[in-house]
Amino acid sequence: MALKVALLGCGVVGSEVVRLMNEQSTELAARIGTPLEIGGIAVRRTGRVRDTGLDPELFTTDAMSLVTRPDIDLVVEVIGGIEPARSLILAAVKAGKSVVTANKALLAEDGEVIHDAARDAGVDIYYEASVAGAIPLLRPLRDSLAGDRINRVLGIVNGTTNYILDRMDALGAGFAESLEEAQALGYAESDPTADVEGFDAAAKAAILARLAFHTPVTAADVHREGITEVTAGDIVSAQAMGCVVKLLAICQRSEDGASVGVRVHPVMLPREHPLANVKEAYNAVFVEAESAGRLMFYGAGAGGSPTASAVLGDVVAIARNRRAGTFAADGDDDSVLAVHPMGETVTRYHVALDVADRPGVLAAVAEVYAANGVSIKNVRQEGHGEDAQLVLVSHQAPDAALARTVEQLRTLDMVRAVASVMRVEAFQH
Amino acid sequence: MALKVALLGCGVVGSEVVRLMNEQSTELAARIGTPLEIGGIAVRRTGRVRDTGLDPELFTTDAMSLVTRPDIDLVVEVIGGIEPARSLILAAVKAGKSVVTANKALLAEDGEVIHDAARDAGVDIYYEASVAGAIPLLRPLRDSLAGDRINRVLGIVNGTTNYILDRMDALGAGFAESLEEAQALGYAESDPTADVEGFDAAAKAAILARLAFHTPVTAADVHREGITEVTAGDIVSAQAMGCVVKLLAICQRSEDGASVGVRVHPVMLPREHPLANVKEAYNAVFVEAESAGRLMFYGAGAGGSPTASAVLGDVVAIARNRRAGTFAADGDDDSVLAVHPMGETVTRYHVALDVADRPGVLAAVAEVYAANGVSIKNVRQEGHGEDAQLVLVSHQAPDAALARTVEQLRTLDMVRAVASVMRVEAFQH
Repeated sequence: MALKVALLGCGVVGSEVVRLMNEQSTELAARIGTPLEIGGIAVRRTGRVRDTGLDPELFTTDAMSLVTRPDIDLVVEVIGGIEPARSLILAAVKAGKSVVTANKALLAEDGEVIHDAARDAGVDIYYEASVAGAIPLLRPLRDSLAGDRINRVLGIVNGTTNYILDRMDALGAGFAESLEEAQALGYAESDPTADVEGFDAAAKAAILARLAFHTPVTAADVHREGITEVTAGDIVSAQAMGCVVKLLAICQRSEDGASVGVRVHPVMLPREHPLANVKEAYNAVFVEAESAGRLMFYGAGAGGSPTASAVLGDVVAIARNRRAGTFAADGDDDSVLAVHPMGETVTRYHVALDVADRPGVLAAVAEVYAANGVSIKNVRQEGHGEDAQLVLVSHQAPDAALARTVEQLRTLDMVRAVASVMRVEAFQH
Repeated sequence: MALKVALLGCGVVGSEVVRLMNEQSTELAARIGTPLEIGGIAVRRTGRVRDTGLDPELFTTDAMSLVTRPDIDLVVEVIGGIEPARSLILAAVKAGKSVVTANKALLAEDGEVIHDAARDAGVDIYYEASVAGAIPLLRPLRDSLAGDRINRVLGIVNGTTNYILDRMDALGAGFAESLEEAQALGYAESDPTADVEGFDAAAKAAILARLAFHTPVTAADVHREGITEVTAGDIVSAQAMGCVVKLLAICQRSEDGASVGVRVHPVMLPREHPLANVKEAYNAVFVEAESAGRLMFYGAGAGGSPTASAVLGDVVAIARNRRAGTFAADGDDDSVLAVHPMGETVTRYHVALDVADRPGVLAAVAEVYAANGVSIKNVRQEGHGEDAQLVLVSHQAPDAALARTVEQLRTLDMVRAVASVMRVEAFQH
C-alpha cells in the first residue's frame, strides 16, 4: 500500500524532490515502512517534456482536481506565492491530505488560517524548507525545545544579503558593487528588492517568532530595514569595534515576558559571536533559551538540493504519521502575546559623528543622550581637526529614545554629520 | 487524564527536570494536550530530604517496582551507567512504558538490544540528551534528514577537552596546566580519564554513527585517541598552518558507500571551518549530507539545565505520541554496513620533523612517503641549523600507510625527532 504524493510545481525544487524520491525509493520505503509513489504533478503547462523519467500522464494543469483526488495522501506545494497556493493547500487540507510546503510568504501572511484548517481536519502541515532551507530548525524549535522557554532568536536567514555583507567586510567594497558581484554569481536576483530590502527575511522572522513564542505573528508585525543604506564606512566602523555587520532577523521576548518584538535590520555583531563567522550565502539561526542556553543551527539557506532535502524530511515525517494513523498537531498558539512596536524594543546604538575638534563637543553630545534617558556605554574620538570623529556606543534603551537621540544630534552645531548609525547586538546576558 | 512520569535518579539533571516540569506545567499541558504528573522518583536513599517541593511519598528506593507500576506512562532515566539502568529500561519497555534516557554509555554499548525491545513493545525510546546536551541534534539527524544521505559527521562532543584545547590555543599553555585550570573551574572532573582519553566522545560517536548511517555501531567499533599527548608544540604547528587543534568524533562513509569508519582523535582543523570557532566548553556537530550540504548544530554540551531541557523536549514528544496512541519507531537499521578498521580509514597527516640542516634530507624523507604510496601535499622548512624543522602535510591516504610512513621516518638518520604528528581534517569536497 504505497502512499501517494501530489506535487504542486516542478521547477528547481520540485524536480529535485522527484529525483530524490526516485533515487532513494528503497531507503525511503524502509524508513517510512511503506513505499512512496508520485500520484501526480501539477504544472502550469504540460507542453514541455520534463526530464523526470516519469510517465507524462502524471502531469496535469488541473492542480485543484489533483489535490482533492481521493487516492492522494500527501501534497507537496513548491509553487510559492500567495495564490493559487493558498486555495490549493486549504482545499487539500479540507480533503484530508497532509501538506508539505516551502511557502514562507504564505505562512507569514496567513499561517493562522492554514494551521487552524489543518488542526480542524486532523492533518499535518510541515514547512521546514520555508526558513533557512535545509537546516533542521523549525522542528527542533517546535519539538525539541517544547519543554523550554525561548527568550530570543537571532537569525541570518537571507543568503543574498549575507553574501553581499560578507564581501563588503572582506574586500572593503561598497554595497552597489557587491550586489553586482552577487548578481553575476547567481546569489542575487536581477530584481533584488525582496532580499536587500529585507522582505524575505521579515517573512521568515514572522514564522520563527510564531514557533519560538507560540503566539501568532504575521509579516505585517515585523519591523523591517534592509541593507541598501549600509556603507563601506559602516563596515569600517564595525571593524574598529571588533564587529561585523550582519542583516539579522530578531525575535525577542520583552523583559516582563508579556510581549514580543520582531524585527529585521542590519546590526553590528562582535566577531566572537558564532553568527559573525557565518560566511558567504550560508544561513544560521542562534537561539537563546532559558534552560538550553545558547544554540545555533547553521547550513545552506537556499538552493534546489538543500530545499528538496528539507521537503523530503517533512514528507518522511508526515508519511510515518499517516501510516501510524496519527498527526502531529502543530503546537497551539497557547500564549497569545502582544507584538510591541519597534519604538518599545530595547536596543543599543552605535553612532559615529563627524564633529568639530574642539572642547565642549563631548559635553554637548552627552547632554543629548542624557536628555533622552540614554546612557553611554563607551565613547572614543578618532582622528583630529577636519577628520575628528566621535564614536559612541549606548547602553540598552527603547529604540524610540535612541532614534530621537540621533535626530537631535543631527541638529547640533558642532556635529557636522552623522557618519554611521547602526544597532549593536551581542549575547543577551 | 494526566500522563504519569516515573523519574529514575534525582541528581543534578533529575532535580532540574522536576523543577522545569513544575514551573512550566501549564505550558507543557497545553503543548501536550494533557497534564504531566510525577508518579514517583527512584533514588538510592530516601533519607535525605530533597528540595523539590514534592510529596516525600513520591520517593522510593524500589526502582523496579516503580517502572513496572501500571499507572506509569513514561519513564525518565537519568541514573547513567550500564546497570541497573539497562535492566530498569528493559523492564519498563516490556511493561509498555515509553522511555527517555540520557545514558550515552548504555546506548553506545547496548543500543540495539534496547531499540529492538522498544520496537517489539511498540513504545518510544528517546535520548536527545545523550549526545551534545541540549543541542537538538539526534532528532534532526533521525527525522529531518530522513530523506537525505549523510556522508560524514564531525563533532566536538566533549566540552572538557574542548575547553582544555581552547585554553592551550589561546594562551600557549601546556596540557597539564590547562587540565588543572579546567578542573579548578569545574569543567573537568578530578579523575578526567573518561574525557581526556576520549571514552566519552567515543560513546557519543557510536550513537551518532548509528543515527547517521542507519547501521549498528557500538563503542567497541570506535577508534579512540585522547588529547593527553597533545603538546604546546602541536598547537604552535597548527597555528602556523592557520589551523586549530580540536578533539573530533568523526563518522565517515567510505567512498564506495559499503562501509563506515568511526573514530575519535585530535585533529588540526582550518580556522575558517565553522567547528574551529567553537570555544570553551561548547559542543557542535557538523554534518555533510548529499542534498542538504553542510549543516552545523551548536550549543551547550553539558550542565543540569541544558540536559534537563533536552530530556523535557523528549518527554513532550513521547507524551504527545502517547496521547495520539502512537509511537515513533526509531528508524530500523536498514543498511547494515561494515565498520572498517582505522587503518583503512582515509586521512591526512601533518608531520613536523626535527632534521639535520643539510642537502638530501627532503629527498630521503620524500622517498619514505613514496615507498608507502603517500603523496605529499605541501612541505616547508622552518628554522636553520640545530632548529631546522621540516613540516609536511600529506594528501589523503589510508591511515595505516600514513602511520607506517611516520614509523619509518623515525628510523631515518637525518631525522633527529618526530616533533609533531597529527591528522588534518577539512571540508570533504
